[in-house]
Amino acid sequence: MTKVLDKGYIEFIESWGSDERIIEAARMSTNKGFVNWDEDVKLLAYLYNHKHMTPFEMAGMVLEVKAPIMVFREWHRHRTMSYNEMSARYVPLPDEDYVPTLERVMTGANTATTNKQAQSLAELNEQDAMDWLYMLQDVYNHCQIVYEYGLKVGIPKELARLPITVGRYSRMRVSCNLRNWLAFLTLRQDQAAQWEIRVYADEICKLIAEHFPKTEELFSK
Amino acid sequence: MTKVLDKGYIEFIESWGSDERIIEAARMSTNKGFVNWDEDVKLLAYLYNHKHMTPFEMAGMVLEVKAPIMVFREWHRHRTMSYNEMSARYVPLPDEDYVPTLERVMTGANTATTNKQAQSLAELNEQDAMDWLYMLQDVYNHCQIVYEYGLKVGIPKELARLPITVGRYSRMRVSCNLRNWLAFLTLRQDQAAQWEIRVYADEICKLIAEHFPKTEELFSK
Amino acid sequence: MTKVLDKGYIEFIESWGSDERIIEAARMSTNKGFVNWDEDVKLLAYLYNHKHMTPFEMAGMVLEVKAPIMVFREWHRHRTMSYNEMSARYVPLPDEDYVPTLERVMTGANTATTNKQAQSLAELNEQDAMDWLYMLQDVYNHCQIVYEYGLKVGIPKELARLPITVGRYSRMRVSCNLRNWLAFLTLRQDQAAQWEIRVYADEICKLIAEHFPKTEELFSK
Amino acid sequence: MTKVLDKGYIEFIESWGSDERIIEAARMSTNKGFVNWDEDVKLLAYLYNHKHMTPFEMAGMVLEVKAPIMVFREWHRHRTMSYNEMSARYVPLPDEDYVPTLERVMTGANTATTNKQAQSLAELNEQDAMDWLYMLQDVYNHCQIVYEYGLKVGIPKELARLPITVGRYSRMRVSCNLRNWLAFLTLRQDQAAQWEIRVYADEICKLIAEHFPKTEELFSK
Repeated sequence: MTKVLDKGYIEFIESWGSDERIIEAARMSTNKGFVNWDEDVKLLAYLYNHKHMTPFEMAGMVLEVKAPIMVFREWHRHRTMSYNEMSARYVPLPDEDYVPTLERVMTGANTATTNKQAQSLAELNEQDAMDWLYMLQDVYNHCQIVYEYGLKVGIPKELARLPITVGRYSRMRVSCNLRNWLAFLTLRQDQAAQWEIRVYADEICKLIAEHFPKTEELFSK
Repeated sequence: MTKVLDKGYIEFIESWGSDERIIEAARMSTNKGFVNWDEDVKLLAYLYNHKHMTPFEMAGMVLEVKAPIMVFREWHRHRTMSYNEMSARYVPLPDEDYVPTLERVMTGANTATTNKQAQSLAELNEQDAMDWLYMLQDVYNHCQIVYEYGLKVGIPKELARLPITVGRYSRMRVSCNLRNWLAFLTLRQDQAAQWEIRVYADEICKLIAEHFPKTEELFSK
Repeated sequence: MTKVLDKGYIEFIESWGSDERIIEAARMSTNKGFVNWDEDVKLLAYLYNHKHMTPFEMAGMVLEVKAPIMVFREWHRHRTMSYNEMSARYVPLPDEDYVPTLERVMTGANTATTNKQAQSLAELNEQDAMDWLYMLQDVYNHCQIVYEYGLKVGIPKELARLPITVGRYSRMRVSCNLRNWLAFLTLRQDQAAQWEIRVYADEICKLIAEHFPKTEELFSK
Repeated sequence: MTKVLDKGYIEFIESWGSDERIIEAARMSTNKGFVNWDEDVKLLAYLYNHKHMTPFEMAGMVLEVKAPIMVFREWHRHRTMSYNEMSARYVPLPDEDYVPTLERVMTGANTATTNKQAQSLAELNEQDAMDWLYMLQDVYNHCQIVYEYGLKVGIPKELARLPITVGRYSRMRVSCNLRNWLAFLTLRQDQAAQWEIRVYADEICKLIAEHFPKTEELFSK
């Protein structure tokens, strides 16, 4: 389990397939199997560089992820993955919210000119950032008080959750084949992606390097 | 445009295909086309009842939807639809949040015993429900103040959004073929679905009845 | 490896996940994990019977399959699976064609009245069936002669394949999550499915029973 | 309806959406709509060039296609499309097979050195090509005789089809959103694609130019 952000994590559950299995699947087309890496590393590179991506669907990984709802909102737009997420309809969500570091806030503001998505509407000074971070924690507390009050007096769980913010941590299992993990990384390791999802993508890239080293080498260059 | 919940809506943008086109597509298999409704209504029923659903992929609808993030969170789990949603990374979200009616809250609490998902942890009385609704609006205001403050002092938009709750309204275009609209309705018009998404599903069912009357008739019985 | 039809097979390559992992994924929603089978077999049944199928996406199987093109044509309509198939554009296809047994032909003809798809246009007698089987093998030989001649004189492989019939055996790797294997079995173990694909589906069902016994038990009853 | 190959065609059935609708969907994210083409052509180019492809899912086309089974075998590997195809289980397939022109055969053989997939095993001379084309038509006739004999004596239709070759014409309705039509063209207009599917892709590209001119302009440059 690797910690990500202030309270999140990525936990490797299992993988299937391997670099060799990808080769074997690709060799279906020519009626051969895995030969040896001296020769087959060239085939793997050929497949990857010519976008023959179906053999990369013969491997994959299942992970457990804890991340803020804001991150899950972006993640769930990837429609080729399988998800099982904690649900506030069934169980009260633990009181854990994402609080960015001052450094993260300042760096984000300073890259405003180069990154339209992260753009600030004004120039940020450190005191204002610290004030806002204080306010953020205060508003998280307020939300939690109203959430707990609602649950206590008997507001249905599915409605009591209304004051939960998109900074609240949630948890899911996610499964995906390697082709689509790579597609996820392509979009989410990009500099245009929000930093909060990028740090998750970077950890996933390390897991791919561990379990599919030859594929990851091709991907990352 | 039809109003849904207190501040949401569904707007019909366009449809493609028709009950006749579904028949034409099904008749591909037997090398014939549309004959007449006396005969073809039986074929349509046969297809539907025997789960030959691919002809229903030859039609569809594009809608625009305004709904709380809580509703979109459930909606986006349907991976066969196409989505384009407003993004708080690009633009400040308008200050509009979902406030359930007292009646909705009380009804929800009273169906607790039959609907596990909606279940309350205690028996709800009307005064507590009114108090909670008041607190909810108060916490929405607090969140909005911190959101606006953040934007004003220069917190990057993608972070400034952290205090936004899942009750905040967002807006999207959504496109889907008829087969998958019916799959959506099957899950989301069900009594086990949360009432807030059910009211959207019910409006979509009416649009299907308008544009694909013979298919909707089969579906709804 | 299990033999299927006269020259085909199914070979188990690997599986991922397990009945336990399905439970773990389902328990995400309530913030718990696997407990014990006395209790969890009820949850698995609940999930399955109420069509909460996403936890069944957390497991899967990779197989290698050798089957006639006719069977692959039906199989490839399942769009949630991953495929890598032998290609006659790259390599000459081995000279192996599907010849049904006399029994299969006669049984098929006799179920004509109850199964519209298998329907014959006339009543079949055994001598005619034997004659046709003889003609079928003769035409297979003729096709192979023209195929080999084309390859020998230099017709491009992608065109030389034109005389290959849909009875020709091909080979593929196929990967799919458990939810979609079950969807495949639902359609392809059905009495309305062609017997030739049903025998493959029946073998896959046995593999599921071996690797996911509790899920298969629910499915098959 | 446009003729393709010797006996095939593409027929435009209908389209939905438009270049304007794509812009409208993209503008969801910034809470604006279509402005005017002077300004919006830049946005369309930005979307396309930065691979923000979801707005292109808000439009699409339904076509009817008649093509050899060999072409459909490649086509059906595109898993994002919807298909309804004529079925030899339900109806005898019309006696129409693809016969390439001598020119096509010779050109294919001569590009052998640059195109591995089309590669011949020997150098082709025109007399051998003509001989093979004659043999091909002869084997088609033989197959048809056995097919018709089988049907006549009462072989079940689903088995009687075994002597049909992959050169036999079939027919289908196909529906797909614009994003995935472009993905199809990217792979199937490529020089590495088989010429027989390329001519279909080229016709589809013309239909896209007619119905989505600004999108097609971006795609084709």
